[in-house]
Amino acid sequence: MLAVDVGGTGLKAELLGPDLAPLRTHTTPTDADRGPDAVVETILRLCADLTATAPIPVAAASLAVPGLVDAEQGIALWSANIGWRDVPLRKLVEQRLGITATVVHDLAVGGFAEARIGAGAGVADQLFIAIGTGIAGAITAGGIPITVGHGQAGEIGHVIVEEGGPLCGCGAYGCLEAISSAAAISRHYADRSGTKRSTAEIATRLGKDPIADEVWAQAVQALSRALVSYVSLLAPSIIVIGGGLAESGPALFEPLRAAMAARVTFQSLPTLVPAKLGARATVIGAGLLAWDKLNEEATE
Amino acid sequence: MLAVDVGGTGLKAELLGPDLAPLRTHTTPTDADRGPDAVVETILRLCADLTATAPIPVAAASLAVPGLVDAEQGIALWSANIGWRDVPLRKLVEQRLGITATVVHDLAVGGFAEARIGAGAGVADQLFIAIGTGIAGAITAGGIPITVGHGQAGEIGHVIVEEGGPLCGCGAYGCLEAISSAAAISRHYADRSGTKRSTAEIATRLGKDPIADEVWAQAVQALSRALVSYVSLLAPSIIVIGGGLAESGPALFEPLRAAMAARVTFQSLPTLVPAKLGARATVIGAGLLAWDKLNEEATE
Repeated sequence: MLAVDVGGTGLKAELLGPDLAPLRTHTTPTDADRGPDAVVETILRLCADLTATAPIPVAAASLAVPGLVDAEQGIALWSANIGWRDVPLRKLVEQRLGITATVVHDLAVGGFAEARIGAGAGVADQLFIAIGTGIAGAITAGGIPITVGHGQAGEIGHVIVEEGGPLCGCGAYGCLEAISSAAAISRHYADRSGTKRSTAEIATRLGKDPIADEVWAQAVQALSRALVSYVSLLAPSIIVIGGGLAESGPALFEPLRAAMAARVTFQSLPTLVPAKLGARATVIGAGLLAWDKLNEEATE
Repeated sequence: MLAVDVGGTGLKAELLGPDLAPLRTHTTPTDADRGPDAVVETILRLCADLTATAPIPVAAASLAVPGLVDAEQGIALWSANIGWRDVPLRKLVEQRLGITATVVHDLAVGGFAEARIGAGAGVADQLFIAIGTGIAGAITAGGIPITVGHGQAGEIGHVIVEEGGPLCGCGAYGCLEAISSAAAISRHYADRSGTKRSTAEIATRLGKDPIADEVWAQAVQALSRALVSYVSLLAPSIIVIGGGLAESGPALFEPLRAAMAARVTFQSLPTLVPAKLGARATVIGAGLLAWDKLNEEATE
């Protein structure tokens, strides 16, 4: 099984064994500014190289891409970060490699992996939320991953948490992403202090730097507002937090748990846990989905 | 089929034919202040009377109740309006009538009926939202009604739309229900004008009464904020609006459509439509679910 994680900054292809352990890993920069055609060509070459040198036969390829995806047709519909539109990736990979390919949504499969074998394993109702440059989620309800339409579901980063709040990359004001993403926290810190720092640096300054405290508290409050609204709608028993910000650990989880506990009234408070699979969640999810598909076809 | 709609103010029992048309209808006030035992006794008597005088054999009873419900065990867990807690309704009805009974959540089955044969028929991803004294929703995702846990899912009335906003009945501040429910609109109008009016009266004063305009616009804006946040999360293709406020028609739907259109950026705007089944949605949904269950058991 070949699993590819197509990211805005890097491409990662892994040759996975049946136990999902990586037999080989190739990575290369995406260099999106070369244009979408060049990126697609790099993806195809990466797949071909890894397949040609594989120590075991490669049964299928699974490509996880960002933005909007038509998983049924195998088309990468749109990505702001990569700058492509309507790329028939499945067909291109199948033609080049001569094996079955699937195209899936990166965040959805990352959440799927956490829900199936990661921090949320065995929990029927859960939210996976990735907080990094942006914020997005993957919803599991009644044991079923909710992937409505073309991968648009789960856009919790665009829940409006502050009417007339900061401008978001999507063009709206007061989206969660514009306040609580790692990028927004760094930006708000720089705006107020004049110094650019990463969220990891800001987290270590908590309790000593009033601007850090203020920006962090604002992000945690906005996050608690969005998550409690989510709890009212979908009553998850667990919320799994991944992405760069989750690496702040207790500096994020402790005040967030307290803020959510202070907000809920009739709602049951879900457990908050960090993601388990880390940066490999996407390739693992892509691999899992492709194995499932192969097994289904084999039993049909 | 006997279908019972247990409401905070009234109890309605219908004897339904296989086409879901009402063969007989009995209604009686709930009089919740008599205490939960008396309410339960009235429900049981209503069921027994209707069964005894039925012109056709009654195969099963389906009871739709408000609040929290354990549908699997047939227990009405809790309702603030009726004041009961842990009532084993299914067992009580089965013992009294000697027929199979099911206990379901009133709003969830109302939404289920609208999604199956009402305004949302055939649409895989939709939200049914009832706006009356309170606000609650029933979610359908990927063609499946989402009834997480004990009927808690779909509590869109408690999405936080205004940090530090008006106090909600649930104890939190700034919930949608505290701004946009029919009760909240009347209350805010009375607070500002000194005159108590229904939402129907307030709607007819729009364009002529600045306080009506202001209160109405505030409710519509809060509603658009919650619905667009819902759209980001679950990307419905249709939103069905029921409950008393939906009867305002264009006075509600036109400004709400405009407010949502002004808010969305990357999201696809869902169609907004009024509910079709009106006050019978709950008994129809209860009947449909019970027929489904009988059919499943028959084919097993």
